[in-house]
Amino acid sequence: MASITRLLISCPDQPGIVAATARLLADTGANIVDSDQHTTDPHGGTFYMRMEFDLALDAAARAELETRFAREVADPLQMQWRMADASARKRVAILVSREEHCLLDLLWRARRGELAIDVPLVVSNHELLREDVEAFGLRYEHVPVVRGREGEGEARLLELLAAEPVDLIVLARYMRILSGGLLDELAVPVINIHHSFLPAFAGAGPYAQAKARGVKLIGATAHYVTERLDDGPIIEQDTVRVTHRDDVPALIRLGADIERVVLARAVRWHCEDRVLRAGDTTVVF
Amino acid sequence: MASITRLLISCPDQPGIVAATARLLADTGANIVDSDQHTTDPHGGTFYMRMEFDLALDAAARAELETRFAREVADPLQMQWRMADASARKRVAILVSREEHCLLDLLWRARRGELAIDVPLVVSNHELLREDVEAFGLRYEHVPVVRGREGEGEARLLELLAAEPVDLIVLARYMRILSGGLLDELAVPVINIHHSFLPAFAGAGPYAQAKARGVKLIGATAHYVTERLDDGPIIEQDTVRVTHRDDVPALIRLGADIERVVLARAVRWHCEDRVLRAGDTTVVF
Amino acid sequence: MASITRLLISCPDQPGIVAATARLLADTGANIVDSDQHTTDPHGGTFYMRMEFDLALDAAARAELETRFAREVADPLQMQWRMADASARKRVAILVSREEHCLLDLLWRARRGELAIDVPLVVSNHELLREDVEAFGLRYEHVPVVRGREGEGEARLLELLAAEPVDLIVLARYMRILSGGLLDELAVPVINIHHSFLPAFAGAGPYAQAKARGVKLIGATAHYVTERLDDGPIIEQDTVRVTHRDDVPALIRLGADIERVVLARAVRWHCEDRVLRAGDTTVVF
Amino acid sequence: MASITRLLISCPDQPGIVAATARLLADTGANIVDSDQHTTDPHGGTFYMRMEFDLALDAAARAELETRFAREVADPLQMQWRMADASARKRVAILVSREEHCLLDLLWRARRGELAIDVPLVVSNHELLREDVEAFGLRYEHVPVVRGREGEGEARLLELLAAEPVDLIVLARYMRILSGGLLDELAVPVINIHHSFLPAFAGAGPYAQAKARGVKLIGATAHYVTERLDDGPIIEQDTVRVTHRDDVPALIRLGADIERVVLARAVRWHCEDRVLRAGDTTVVF
Repeated sequence: MASITRLLISCPDQPGIVAATARLLADTGANIVDSDQHTTDPHGGTFYMRMEFDLALDAAARAELETRFAREVADPLQMQWRMADASARKRVAILVSREEHCLLDLLWRARRGELAIDVPLVVSNHELLREDVEAFGLRYEHVPVVRGREGEGEARLLELLAAEPVDLIVLARYMRILSGGLLDELAVPVINIHHSFLPAFAGAGPYAQAKARGVKLIGATAHYVTERLDDGPIIEQDTVRVTHRDDVPALIRLGADIERVVLARAVRWHCEDRVLRAGDTTVVF
Repeated sequence: MASITRLLISCPDQPGIVAATARLLADTGANIVDSDQHTTDPHGGTFYMRMEFDLALDAAARAELETRFAREVADPLQMQWRMADASARKRVAILVSREEHCLLDLLWRARRGELAIDVPLVVSNHELLREDVEAFGLRYEHVPVVRGREGEGEARLLELLAAEPVDLIVLARYMRILSGGLLDELAVPVINIHHSFLPAFAGAGPYAQAKARGVKLIGATAHYVTERLDDGPIIEQDTVRVTHRDDVPALIRLGADIERVVLARAVRWHCEDRVLRAGDTTVVF
Repeated sequence: MASITRLLISCPDQPGIVAATARLLADTGANIVDSDQHTTDPHGGTFYMRMEFDLALDAAARAELETRFAREVADPLQMQWRMADASARKRVAILVSREEHCLLDLLWRARRGELAIDVPLVVSNHELLREDVEAFGLRYEHVPVVRGREGEGEARLLELLAAEPVDLIVLARYMRILSGGLLDELAVPVINIHHSFLPAFAGAGPYAQAKARGVKLIGATAHYVTERLDDGPIIEQDTVRVTHRDDVPALIRLGADIERVVLARAVRWHCEDRVLRAGDTTVVF
Repeated sequence: MASITRLLISCPDQPGIVAATARLLADTGANIVDSDQHTTDPHGGTFYMRMEFDLALDAAARAELETRFAREVADPLQMQWRMADASARKRVAILVSREEHCLLDLLWRARRGELAIDVPLVVSNHELLREDVEAFGLRYEHVPVVRGREGEGEARLLELLAAEPVDLIVLARYMRILSGGLLDELAVPVINIHHSFLPAFAGAGPYAQAKARGVKLIGATAHYVTERLDDGPIIEQDTVRVTHRDDVPALIRLGADIERVVLARAVRWHCEDRVLRAGDTTVVF
């Protein structure tokens, strides 16, 4: 039976990285079933690799493999690396405000088996979407965010996530900014969907901005959240054609279809360990 | 035999515009073969219309039709309007610097009959593309632009265009800024192709900017030139998918395919009288 | 207050159609707020038009307008035509088998207000999706179709629709063929979503066919149902890029996103009276 | 200085392929700068791989590497394989009939340095494009094909190619069928551009077929030529949106833009040794 492990690597590029990695895996009897790599520059750049190998391992054997890989391959080559069991489902908390399309799409894809995620918690600053979420048999927590007292909401969020640890937080049209301090304490990746083709139309009201500028395409951007608003590493983007006939509500409607698809792809790729941070950008294998 | 006239209208919206226009045309025996309209708001907005009608007219009859249309329809309804003979080819001057892909594409399309334009003049601030242009049997003028003495280049350009009047100027990757004063004196529309999805990456080096930001799509934008750099009304845009593998030269290569198609569409639509300015945006029928 | 009526016309092309229509509408005080037209050939072709006009009418006044339009405009010009109140919501029955993505997407959009439809009835040849449908507060009827006794299922369907008349039937991945006799008796338009870019891969298992052929894009097609399988007039299509890495389940997953969007567009356009049949094809205004 | 070699492999999948390959390359001092792989099934499927490695080799050392690779890696693992010097330009003959857009696009990309190809010969069954081709400084041969005497044309083509051996033949809108016998004698890959989204609208007049069927997208397909018309392994496809307004000449015009881009991609990928035949389909790395 297949037991797939994913190996993610980044390190200074130099000859022999693939060979050293492949040799050690071959020695253990692993079969490399997928492999993708990228170098920013073969001479002095950064090397990124994602491998999937098939190898039945119990916990002890996996620990031993990791120790050996660290000692024989990763440390000498100054790798940042991790191994992930492909069968381990990611635990994901979703934050949402009033717009339900991205949230419902993620929950529906999870139910359908398209996303290998568990969702222990949906948090909103509104009561509005409780019924929709509970219909999926999931927990919905209303955490109000009051202007000038944002700290209380953030504290409540941390408390909830302390009790229900997650691997990833998704902002599925959550219209509140997370403070840098909160991001540090969360200590897991946070993916946001922004309803424009970044870097165009960062900030509030991107569809109204797009209408005013008269663009002929609108877009959506899924990115990792950093302290700087709408400025984190981009995971995925897409666009859709619009015309002068489309007023702001039409842009919102047309954009919603792109937002949900772009966010779903980003979450899927993240959960399949396909996305590596590369400075202010990403490598998506 | 078909003799198509195009009628372009914009005016404050109110009941009866279509009826008044159609009635007058019907009275003259014209057959409306195409019609498109748009209102920003039926109650107090601006109304735009483009009609094509089939009516054999000699010069005197056309003048009479225009006089009658002005008196009976356009003036009472406060229209800005014009009629254009669809068979009249637009005269177009093309300005270019070093990159030939947009220029050649326009010339190929003109030769193929895709663009109903005549090109009396190609002007460049370099000698580089003379042979390519002259191979099409077209005139190439090298007008150097020297930093600090841009006025001399602009004067020469005006002189050339005074001798060869044109209906449209196309900046086919012309990397110099036209001064506001020059734009006023040119007194014809100027279309530029910018090698990014505006408003993202305005200004210099958009592909390098795009690479640094890590976008997953790059684009191109054709727009009317105004005094404000890369900020005129957008006529057409398109995007193409890129990945972390694409370095700046690859973005330049992939972008070139989009630039030339976007510019060609914008020029075609302009020359078919399909583009109406609407404040800082356009209506494209 | 706006009260929009839609006028749909097709007739032999000849001079004066727009004028005659616009004049009569102007006489009644109507304001034409949108208009789109198409001719297959100004000389001897067929003319199609869709107008939206703003005019407050009670039932009696509307009947009078229709009578006058028929007598003064439509009959002399041999028009096929109808007027539709834009505020009247279409009643839509949805038929589905096992795949829920198109169904749920339509129901979400209807709930969100994106589709101005009421859904009195969802019919399936399986029990599977009852809970999903009833969660929207909608009626779900299980009508089994037994091989060799398809007539019983069709009779039951007709019985249900006799009690709940609808304006449109949508086959949202309904995997049974409707007989020509049934289509005649239904006497309303039927829209189907086919999970390929027709005419490629008609019939069963289009994604497996696509994989075997090694296409680099897959698609979906929404079309009116006729007696000939997968051969009715196409309303909308779209495609998405795939690679050799995508196996049949991946094609099914990627295709589902296109199917639901394509079907939703087709249903929306149909319900906005934007789609006119033109022989074996459609005009979509 | 970089000296890149490409290694292309296909073989029955089994554990250790990557390791054996990478180990041998590491032993020789090669640095793997790019690697891509695909398996149709890790258990009993076919494995495909493309590696690029950096290793300065003179002719003797390369021969030795190939011998050693064959003996130690390829033969034991039943590989079909080849190594290609990335700096070696492919020699390409282009066949064309009357439409110039694909031909000119390829020649222009070659001149620009986008395609690392040399074009010793352009052959046409018409005189029409001689001037265009000779303007690029290339050789143009007119080889008429007379109905009923196609064999004479094929013989002349073989004679020309015997004197100017090529690595690839591109049919850039060449509207004659190459016989199976000719394909055998040519003994190099042949890439064709078909002006439809195959398998839809194979054969003659695809745009007229598309118009009659009323499709909402048209496409183009680049594929390897086999004896069966329009049925060879697909390398690349793309589509563009059309409407009821687009008559057949408009489809031809819009399609031309897609044809040239699709063909250029296919030729580029082929010449970068990115395309592996996999039965009736392709793997494109």
